[in-house]
Amino acid sequence: MSSMKEAIDRVKSLTEKLKTSHEAHSSNNSTENGPKSTPVQPYRAKIEKLSGEVVDSNPYSRLMALQRMGIVKDYENIRKKTVAIVGVGGVGSVVAEMLTRCGIGKLILFDYDKVEIANMNRLFYQPHQSGLSKVDAARDTLIHVNPDVEIETHNFNITTVDNFKTFVDRISCVDNFEARLAVNTACNEENQIWIESGVSENAVSGHIQYIEPGKTACFGCVPPLVVASNIDERTLKREGVCAASLPTTMAVVAGFLVMNALKFLLNFGEVSGYVGYNALVDFFPRQAMLPNPQCTDRFCVQRQKENEKVAEPEKVEEIPEEEIVHEENEWGIVCVDESQPVEKPKDNSNSVAEGLKFAYEAPEPQEELPEEIVVPKDSLEELMKKLKSLQ
Amino acid sequence: MSSMKEAIDRVKSLTEKLKTSHEAHSSNNSTENGPKSTPVQPYRAKIEKLSGEVVDSNPYSRLMALQRMGIVKDYENIRKKTVAIVGVGGVGSVVAEMLTRCGIGKLILFDYDKVEIANMNRLFYQPHQSGLSKVDAARDTLIHVNPDVEIETHNFNITTVDNFKTFVDRISCVDNFEARLAVNTACNEENQIWIESGVSENAVSGHIQYIEPGKTACFGCVPPLVVASNIDERTLKREGVCAASLPTTMAVVAGFLVMNALKFLLNFGEVSGYVGYNALVDFFPRQAMLPNPQCTDRFCVQRQKENEKVAEPEKVEEIPEEEIVHEENEWGIVCVDESQPVEKPKDNSNSVAEGLKFAYEAPEPQEELPEEIVVPKDSLEELMKKLKSLQ
Repeated sequence: MSSMKEAIDRVKSLTEKLKTSHEAHSSNNSTENGPKSTPVQPYRAKIEKLSGEVVDSNPYSRLMALQRMGIVKDYENIRKKTVAIVGVGGVGSVVAEMLTRCGIGKLILFDYDKVEIANMNRLFYQPHQSGLSKVDAARDTLIHVNPDVEIETHNFNITTVDNFKTFVDRISCVDNFEARLAVNTACNEENQIWIESGVSENAVSGHIQYIEPGKTACFGCVPPLVVASNIDERTLKREGVCAASLPTTMAVVAGFLVMNALKFLLNFGEVSGYVGYNALVDFFPRQAMLPNPQCTDRFCVQRQKENEKVAEPEKVEEIPEEEIVHEENEWGIVCVDESQPVEKPKDNSNSVAEGLKFAYEAPEPQEELPEEIVVPKDSLEELMKKLKSLQ
Repeated sequence: MSSMKEAIDRVKSLTEKLKTSHEAHSSNNSTENGPKSTPVQPYRAKIEKLSGEVVDSNPYSRLMALQRMGIVKDYENIRKKTVAIVGVGGVGSVVAEMLTRCGIGKLILFDYDKVEIANMNRLFYQPHQSGLSKVDAARDTLIHVNPDVEIETHNFNITTVDNFKTFVDRISCVDNFEARLAVNTACNEENQIWIESGVSENAVSGHIQYIEPGKTACFGCVPPLVVASNIDERTLKREGVCAASLPTTMAVVAGFLVMNALKFLLNFGEVSGYVGYNALVDFFPRQAMLPNPQCTDRFCVQRQKENEKVAEPEKVEEIPEEEIVHEENEWGIVCVDESQPVEKPKDNSNSVAEGLKFAYEAPEPQEELPEEIVVPKDSLEELMKKLKSLQ
């Protein structure tokens, strides 16, 4: 370094390089500088048209092979699809990653939570993302994994938001009742198909449920159907607020959910109505559920009436998850264990497939009852019998 | 900058900072500098003892909750367990991540492949890792996700290696027949329990199979049992070498596999013998398979004899996947559809549960046949009948 000017230029140049270096790595560097989300630079330009070419550099070769093998007629159609994911936690984040890797057109992510180290027992989020909002952390990873997917994020609580008009398809991966009801209400109003999912608090069971307004039971038609635990209820300790979770159960439920969504979006295989997962014994109860004509959601009832007008008996028969068993059933709950031959039940009481149970008792539909009748809160079956006797 | 000395000091300091900055990010920077694996600095020190404390900073709170809820008796026991994963591709990498997030003691990873952009349609690997060996890329991610897990990696083809003596538990996620046979041979010799897994080339089915030498059918006892495709074989195009794959099916199979491994390692629930997954219709065939006394693997036959000596009828009955149906069955193939009541078959022919089929016809066990008898390569059932007639 011979002159002062040269030294000053060198300092300038090095300062600039250091600044560039810090900027380039800032999103990978949040453990040192505190949580900060800077959208990652995509590793490649967007791909205009999907190719089935079998080369190591083609991210779509194994997906386009589905078309060559005759599983999916037009795989590229996936790029025209938008899926909204309400809740990007243990299930939703894996759903988002699966759809991103499958090359979905657009994802709309909703969550109001932050990534915590306590989430590290599930797939997807990384420790250096702790403190970031889940939607920002998810977007950073997903854009990097597949720059072709458009990611829209909303960092708020959906139960306080009623604008669902831009949704095309919905997937629910929420962890509370209020959020499910909010999605249900919006989907009934918008006549929007969605898939509900849930994982039990003891981490060893879960389910997915396909909900088509007016055609299947909505989330408000009947109490939520959950996989029965084989565990003695007396040994199942519930004190404390921390639910257990396992990456296995959540990824299995995410896999079922995305597979069902792909079958629906790309029109292949059979879309399932309800698939349960009991991880303790690897049992998978299935169930079809018809809508309840006395559902308290007025849009659900409206969709049912619209559906009655257009539906013909032959058409209904085409959809296996809607097989009608209890025609006299005023609750409209249909319980078909699809893994078994369908048997006509001896009475009109509602029974659910082996391995399933309702999450709680059905609420009393008081407006339908004469004032002097008091319905005790006993089993759903009892309640149904009493309702029946009133007719 | 008032003096030349000050300027020189500043340049020195900046050069040092730039160097440190580059070093710190070199492992996240492989797209710019070409593939390079530098083990990531763990984000925290190792945790000595797992805590169930419900705080956001505890990575084990949701796992220790399994203990508080009575699902697992001693969850911390998982830290004493070692699992070997042979093949860290679409299934194996997700298995590795799940076990890492569950806090397994040690993982031993085997693979000889490199990460390619063509793998981006499955979970786990990131585009910036393309060009790295799969085991190195996996180790970098896993150490970052959970520094408590010890990761041992082997970047070679296991079919050419015969040293399996250090294994404690094995999990197989390989994608070819030779690798499965190599694991099978080694496990029979070492009397080592392992779990085989597979995903179909059309991406829409898969299975896991628990193999306990001498107690269940080994991989050589019978032709591999795979989930039958509902697809018309004539429409299933097989030309070309590129198999289809989906992140859904692979994550579901990985989830089943790790759940089965956790149940085995931590002694809860029921370890499944065989669980199939038909994603097109969400059907899950199950099957129990007994070992074949005429298995060509001499260690398998030896383990069967050892097992006969110690086994008492009551003991055998405790293990549901080993229920004996065909006592006269010289092949030892036992086919129990566990989701259905077990029925005694009318003849001695082997049948598999609904939704399952053998991957190929059974090989001719020539050393067991008189030279003049020629067994035509028709169905397994025909072959079995012919073998029976020779006795």
